[in-house]
Amino acid sequence: MASIDAVLQKIDDNQPAALQRLFALLEIPSISTDAAYAPQCARAAAWLAAELTGLGFEASVRETAGRPMVVGRAKASHRDAPHVLFYGHYDVQPVDPLSLWNTDPFKPEIQDGRRIVGRGASDDKGQLMTFVEACRAFRETGGLPCDVTVLFEGEEETGSPSLPDFIAANRDELRADLALVCDTGMWDAETPSITTMLRGLVLEEIVVRAADRDLHSGAYGGAAVNPIHVVSRIVADLHDADGRVTLPGFYDGVDELPAAVAEQWRALPFDEGDFLRGVGLSVPAGERGRSVLEKIWARPTCDVNGITGGYAGVGSKTVLPAVASAKVSFRLVGRQDPAKVAAAFRAFVRARLPADCAVEFIPHGASPALQLPFSSEALTRARRALHAEWGREPVMGGSGGSIPIVGTFKQDLKMDSLMIGFALDDDRVHSPNEKYEVTSFHKGARSWARVLDALAK
Amino acid sequence: MASIDAVLQKIDDNQPAALQRLFALLEIPSISTDAAYAPQCARAAAWLAAELTGLGFEASVRETAGRPMVVGRAKASHRDAPHVLFYGHYDVQPVDPLSLWNTDPFKPEIQDGRRIVGRGASDDKGQLMTFVEACRAFRETGGLPCDVTVLFEGEEETGSPSLPDFIAANRDELRADLALVCDTGMWDAETPSITTMLRGLVLEEIVVRAADRDLHSGAYGGAAVNPIHVVSRIVADLHDADGRVTLPGFYDGVDELPAAVAEQWRALPFDEGDFLRGVGLSVPAGERGRSVLEKIWARPTCDVNGITGGYAGVGSKTVLPAVASAKVSFRLVGRQDPAKVAAAFRAFVRARLPADCAVEFIPHGASPALQLPFSSEALTRARRALHAEWGREPVMGGSGGSIPIVGTFKQDLKMDSLMIGFALDDDRVHSPNEKYEVTSFHKGARSWARVLDALAK
Repeated sequence: MASIDAVLQKIDDNQPAALQRLFALLEIPSISTDAAYAPQCARAAAWLAAELTGLGFEASVRETAGRPMVVGRAKASHRDAPHVLFYGHYDVQPVDPLSLWNTDPFKPEIQDGRRIVGRGASDDKGQLMTFVEACRAFRETGGLPCDVTVLFEGEEETGSPSLPDFIAANRDELRADLALVCDTGMWDAETPSITTMLRGLVLEEIVVRAADRDLHSGAYGGAAVNPIHVVSRIVADLHDADGRVTLPGFYDGVDELPAAVAEQWRALPFDEGDFLRGVGLSVPAGERGRSVLEKIWARPTCDVNGITGGYAGVGSKTVLPAVASAKVSFRLVGRQDPAKVAAAFRAFVRARLPADCAVEFIPHGASPALQLPFSSEALTRARRALHAEWGREPVMGGSGGSIPIVGTFKQDLKMDSLMIGFALDDDRVHSPNEKYEVTSFHKGARSWARVLDALAK
Repeated sequence: MASIDAVLQKIDDNQPAALQRLFALLEIPSISTDAAYAPQCARAAAWLAAELTGLGFEASVRETAGRPMVVGRAKASHRDAPHVLFYGHYDVQPVDPLSLWNTDPFKPEIQDGRRIVGRGASDDKGQLMTFVEACRAFRETGGLPCDVTVLFEGEEETGSPSLPDFIAANRDELRADLALVCDTGMWDAETPSITTMLRGLVLEEIVVRAADRDLHSGAYGGAAVNPIHVVSRIVADLHDADGRVTLPGFYDGVDELPAAVAEQWRALPFDEGDFLRGVGLSVPAGERGRSVLEKIWARPTCDVNGITGGYAGVGSKTVLPAVASAKVSFRLVGRQDPAKVAAAFRAFVRARLPADCAVEFIPHGASPALQLPFSSEALTRARRALHAEWGREPVMGGSGGSIPIVGTFKQDLKMDSLMIGFALDDDRVHSPNEKYEVTSFHKGARSWARVLDALAK
């Protein structure tokens, strides 16, 4: 096995050719949502399988009911190496409105010597190729330090409909010691980040029915129960004056941050005012006494995502409606149990249901929070590796939203995921003129080389 | 002036011919909402003007931007008689679905010797002809006991768009001591009713805005204010645990019922359970300690008629919306001031608006409650007259909804209205197979004769 310095030097030497390879992938319009581009998705999958085969992987394109998967497997140069599963996706978002692009989205180019511009440059072709280039450098300098399985999918932008079944059907092939997921971003252009926590999600819709028809509010108002009032009361009761969620037992399994992480977050150059001003707000809402980063990364929440009842048109209508509804979501952290949260919510609603009202519960999904333990050895090694590459301690960040593949890996393959990515907030993913920094691409590959090296030691 | 007995005898004698006259009017398909029937509305107006002229009225058809009005005026047989304005409408609802009619809606017939079946039989041609026939009987026995102005409109079923301007332009001609409105019903087939109170209405829409765009509830949930929560809190706060409206000063001007009226209502054969079961409910909601009749006739209320915010489609969407809204209505009674209620509501909303939220108020109308004073001499005389005809004390009822013409008379012509009608709950107004009881038509005319006689004494 070559020294890491030799591998990094190889990555530097390969950089011009690596960009050419990335461009070849970016030129394939592998838009997954539009069936007209299915052949292009197949082309991208075949291109990746060929790349991996060229690197000594045992690689194949695997058909699904939708867009194909690519699976590749390569052994480390020595026995008893750890086994990692790397995940990325080759499909991209549509490009419309095309008129807002300054260049052809599928004719990638480097602008100002520093930005790779094109659809998929950042999300996720550029990111997944950082890992491929790291593997290449190892192969060209003596061999991989880890057993590596690669899984590239082609339906991430359409909700990964084929993925759960594919993973369930290929558990033995895909199971590894650790998953590496490259679909996240850096803290800023100079500071790497490891996403260590993803909030879970419980989605519950309630439909409250009262009278068997809409009533005239003149004829019945004051004597007939109004389901809009019932739903509003339930929503209002879900938070106390301190912004805490009032469901009994809701905070069971919610831990305080380790002191070191809390300290790191406090020290981050994060301006709460700037964050909020970006969307037209100025004052943090929510749980009293918590920072904004805590609130969006490490604290559970409840938000009503939709409410309906009665007349929604222009003007007024003196109706006392028969039905009102709300779509409620809970973001979970730590060890909160989605089933217990859903049950507590349903009990909470039933306890507030007046006579003559019936409630229907419509579940729209439940998943637990995911947490890479702060004490995990893999995390410690990855932190050290990224620090060596970037000269800065990586941010142990959270993500308020969910990354479904990470949950699937955890639940179905019993694997933790190390989420490292090199995208920047201004990469315009999903938007016209998507770009990826040349630095992200280059130092991303170097970062993966260091991480693989660190995991193997 | 002839004795009332002679007038009543004349009405009885005229009954076969009166039915023929009513049938002639019912045969005219004066549907106001469909422009194709505008000539039929003109025909009905001309027919009524001719009828009135035949009775010695100075009557004319008066064009408007929509369907014409009919105005007729006749003097009492003696000087210094009171002056009444009678209001009715000759336009009718459409008849579809025609397939559900058992007879041609414009070929009226008498079924089982007791029901006049046809479109407009009850609403409002049959009702307005009770008054015309009463006038005829007076004319044929010596003369009217009151100065009478008649106003028939042809747009009641389409919201009376031309009426306010017409009244404003003809104030001097239309102003009288008292308005008589025949567009309401009886308590039951044996018990007459005088509607003495109509609830007022304040309609206010609130639109609460927070962030300048919809946010991802994962990325911002917990730190960004959710306008659905804000609107729900406002709605929840509008009532206390006893079902009372919490706006400061809301109950200013709300009087308790006079003891005699309260006693009459308590004694009415009204089954609250039946009333609620009719719409799928079983337990009265609203203000604690009030009967259902009080609640819908004599108590002010607040109902949200519509609420919107966020995602309303199928399934779920993890959106933290930028905007939420509610359409709120207040039913007013007694001397509640609509402007003060609206102002109190706006202050109430503003006081509950968190930082970063803005509210827009959209008023959709405000009108005060209307109350014919229980102590009014006209009411006392009308009660006595109806009691003499029906052998029962008339119910001093209320109406939870509004009758706009009564408000117009009050505000624009400074006239109280005596609302007396002979429709029954099962008359199927606006529905197929509309009917009017022969008894309603016959004793209705006799009732008006007695009322006019009583008012003149």
